[in-house]
This record gives sequence, C-alpha cells and structure tokens, in this order.
Amino acid sequence: HRAIIEATSDIACAYKPNFAFFEAMGAAGYEALAQTLEAIPRDIPVIADAKRGDVPNTAMAYARAIYDVWNCDAVTVNPYLGHDSIEPFLRPGRGVFLLCRTSNPGAGDLQDLRTGDDGAPLYQVIARRAAEWGNDGSIGLVVGATYPDEGRAIRKLAPGLLFLVPGLGAQGGDLEASVAATLDRSGQGCLFNASRQVIYAGAGKDFDVAARAAALALRDAINGVRDAQVVRRQVKAPMDLRPADRVQLKKAHACGGDQWTVTRIGADIGLRCERCERHVLLDRVTVERRIVAFIERAPSAATG
Amino acid sequence: HRAIIEATSDIACAYKPNFAFFEAMGAAGYEALAQTLEAIPRDIPVIADAKRGDVPNTAMAYARAIYDVWNCDAVTVNPYLGHDSIEPFLRPGRGVFLLCRTSNPGAGDLQDLRTGDDGAPLYQVIARRAAEWGNDGSIGLVVGATYPDEGRAIRKLAPGLLFLVPGLGAQGGDLEASVAATLDRSGQGCLFNASRQVIYAGAGKDFDVAARAAALALRDAINGVRDAQVVRRQVKAPMDLRPADRVQLKKAHACGGDQWTVTRIGADIGLRCERCERHVLLDRVTVERRIVAFIERAPSAATG
Repeated sequence: HRAIIEATSDIACAYKPNFAFFEAMGAAGYEALAQTLEAIPRDIPVIADAKRGDVPNTAMAYARAIYDVWNCDAVTVNPYLGHDSIEPFLRPGRGVFLLCRTSNPGAGDLQDLRTGDDGAPLYQVIARRAAEWGNDGSIGLVVGATYPDEGRAIRKLAPGLLFLVPGLGAQGGDLEASVAATLDRSGQGCLFNASRQVIYAGAGKDFDVAARAAALALRDAINGVRDAQVVRRQVKAPMDLRPADRVQLKKAHACGGDQWTVTRIGADIGLRCERCERHVLLDRVTVERRIVAFIERAPSAATG
Repeated sequence: HRAIIEATSDIACAYKPNFAFFEAMGAAGYEALAQTLEAIPRDIPVIADAKRGDVPNTAMAYARAIYDVWNCDAVTVNPYLGHDSIEPFLRPGRGVFLLCRTSNPGAGDLQDLRTGDDGAPLYQVIARRAAEWGNDGSIGLVVGATYPDEGRAIRKLAPGLLFLVPGLGAQGGDLEASVAATLDRSGQGCLFNASRQVIYAGAGKDFDVAARAAALALRDAINGVRDAQVVRRQVKAPMDLRPADRVQLKKAHACGGDQWTVTRIGADIGLRCERCERHVLLDRVTVERRIVAFIERAPSAATG
C-alpha cells in the first residue's frame, strides 16, 4: 500500500482504508493497517471505513479504537442504533459519515422502506436526521455512486452536508451521473472514492504508475463534470425556496437557534428564528449558501 | 478473561466477546482477544459481537475475519444494508444475529419509525425479513432486554427464531419482564447475555469466584422465570391462528415450499402450500411448533 499512497498523495484529497480487508488477514493485516496509516502524509485526512455502530458504552470503545489507536480523522458509522450510538464518535476535529444510501445492489431492501406520514424512504430520513444531529459539520453522509437519483434527492434534503461517495469503478457507479447528482450548489461537498479502480489499475511491477494514472484520470473526470455543472448553475434558476419552508442554517443565530422558518421570498429572503421568533431579512445568495438542510418542506405552489 | 471463562464455562451456554473493547486496546487488545477465544472450551459456541455490516465484497472479508481468522460460530450483523450484505455471513454451521431491537436508550430513533402500508415499526420489519432470509435457522435476532414490550411483539412475529438478548444487568433490563417476553412457546429460543454484571461482579482478587456466583444467580433467575412461564403456557389458550394468516413453517413441503396460508382453524389446522397449492391438515400442536414466523397476519375476528 505504501507505493500506492506515494504515487497518489498529491492527487488524493483523503484516504479511506477499508478495515475489513485488513481484519481478514489476521495479525498480518493488523500490521499492514498500521503501516498503511503510517505511510499517509500527516496533512491528508484519513477516513476509517469501518462501518461501526453499537450501544453508547461500546461505541465509545470503537471511537477510541478509530481515533486513539488508529489516529483516523473520520469514520463511517451505521445509523440503525440511533443518535446516542453516534454521539461517541462526535469529537472536535473528527468527522462521522453516516450510512445513508449504500452502493450495493440490495441497498433498497430497507433503505427504500416508506416511513412516517409523508412516506419518505428510510434513507431520506437518515439524511434529515444527519442534518439535525451534526449541524456543525461533524456529520456527513455515505451516498453510493450507484444510485444517482437517490443521491440527488439526498443533496436536496441536505444541501450543506459533506458526502462520501463510494461505488465508482468496480461497483459500476456512473461517474458523470453520480458526480452531477451529489455535488452541492458550489460544485463541492463530495469526496468521491475509488478503491479497486486505482489499487488494481495495474497488475505488473509498475502497479504504482498505473495507480497514479488511474487516480489522475479519475480526478480529471470528476473535475470535468464539476466544472460543467458550476457553469450551468450560474445561468440556472435560483434555489426553490418556498414560504413556510423550515430550514437549518450553517451559522447559529445570536440567540443560539439554528432552525428558521421562511416567511418571505424574493431577492431578499425573510426568515423567522424558531427559537427567539425574531425576523431577519437576508439576501438570497447568502441564504442559499447557508442552508444546511430543509427540516420540513412547504408544499410547492404547483402541488400545494 | 481466562479466569472468568474457567469460572463460568459449566454455566454459560455461549460466550459473546465484544470486539470493540479489544480493538480499543490496540495491539495488546488483539492479543487479548486471541487469548480469550483460545480459553473458551471447544464445545461452547462463540458469538462475535462485532456488529459488522457492509457491501457484499467487503462483508465477505468481514466474514473471513470472524469465521476464519477468529473461528467464531456466529456474529452480530447490522441489517441496514439489506439482504446481499448479510448473505456473506451465512455459512453452514454458522449463525447470524441481525440487530432488530437494540438495548440502548436511543434505539427507537430509527427502529420505531412507522413503515409501509401497515405502519409496522422498522424493527418489526427486520423481524419479518429475518424469518424470510434465514428460515433454515441460520439467522437470529438481537432483541434488547431493556424493551420487553418490543421483545414480545418480535416473538409474536418470529415464534421460531433464536434471540440474542443483551442488556440485562448494567444496562438496566428487567430480567423477569424480558425473559417472559422473549422466550418461545416451549420456554426456549433465547440466549440471555450479561457482560458487566458477571465480569465486574467482584473487584478483588477473588473476582472469578464473584463472577461465577453472579453467573449462577443469573442463570437460576432466568430459569425460574422460564419454568413459571412453561407451566402457565400449559394451561393457556392456544396460539391465535386466523384463517388467511400466511405462515412460514420449519420443515419445507415435499414440493420445496415453506410458506403456507391458513385455510381452516380448529383442533386440526388446514394449510395450503403457497407453492404447489396442495392442502394439508395438521394437528394444532404440530402446526404451532413448526411456525417460524407469520409472513402476513389476517385481521383478527374482533378488528376485521
């Protein structure tokens, strides 16, 4: 792994070691994981792809393993056990990626279940909860590249969250579709992950050269889609804000509240703080940039 | 851990090492896990409490780690990723416990979400799926002792599945309520787990003696509730079978089908095989014993 890291460290924005493949090799894998993490330059974030999730007392132990033993910066966490199981992973300067829409063919078995009064599929509930639970940027979402339609729906619900997007390459995710679907309005907000596509790009002695070429090609392809999209956005209609939308903003209000109700639409957007009830008027560009998530959508003029 | 195992190995029906606490200790923990597993007598099953769950290719690696590296007999698995993520853990002679209702206070955050047309909470959907996915006994359920009402509902949906019941003791599960709620109709079908209550029963040098005493007391308390319940069951009303109930039976029909529709109620129960459409008539005791799960419940006479 060291050679692959050296060949790609000026291209990759993060590394995401998959703990399963190290664990499957027993003691040798334990040693290999240590060496792999050691080889990653200090300034590049490391996401432990470990998909942990347990009751709070146990989750604390997993957090110690990921953050203190392995010194990783972030971890993938399964949300099924609820908020108190995620809390132990929330530490200043560390990040959690909650499984929202996974990249496997069977993802929909449970993630597509219709829930609650509005029939929102389960994966969308996770997206909404993530915005509530980690409004300070500490929680991101895992959004499989193999499901661009679902990715687009998640991005609409959580415009300001960071996405980890696995499933490009070997798993068959369509690069153009998934990049276009998941980037935020400024063309950012995603970490696209490729594992097998890069690591196994070459089978010969020059596997590191092949890995570098694959990583470069992937980066350029992603950035190409992004640039096209940003240009398109600049001539595009503004965000579909509606009166009575409930939104979560990035910066807390002076009173401490961060949830707002939209009261007025126009070049300036009227907002009422749900905590202190004060009204503010902000220009649309600022509001669009600050929205982390829609807590509740008002019906659109067309359907409402 | 060796002393605790030696002090309890004639009492415990299984051991359930929690991988998190070993992982949190780094290399020393890796070694400690190896020694702990080594100390468990060969004839006592070991459940790896690792709460894994990932896309199929990765789940295969986790299965190798649990079964081939650590030689465990069963593993706890998070169902959020769907059936294809669970399949790699299904091997002859090994078992999977799917998280259904976990024991933590926040369990209900997602597990209580109402789903689908009938509004069944998510944890009940897992119970039904488990019966479909692992009708051969390969899949059991994790049912927290801290939620006896939910445990009772799960037992009704999955009368024939094995439950792993954590949360007694330190987590505050009410022993009598949870044992009564989760045992099957013959007073079996559950593995009750206590960790801190036994391991930390004594803090002094005789901690192994204290652990043995705690394990014995726990076993006797569980068996006491069970015996009382079995007696009560013997004079109790029969299972509430209804015409048009769809059930899954333990033994497959000659045609290979294992799903049946109830066509007639009485001392003998009429059943139609959903695969070959043949009718059979079986005595009630046999039917009640063979039911693994209700696939779909007919409305009761009272509400329908």
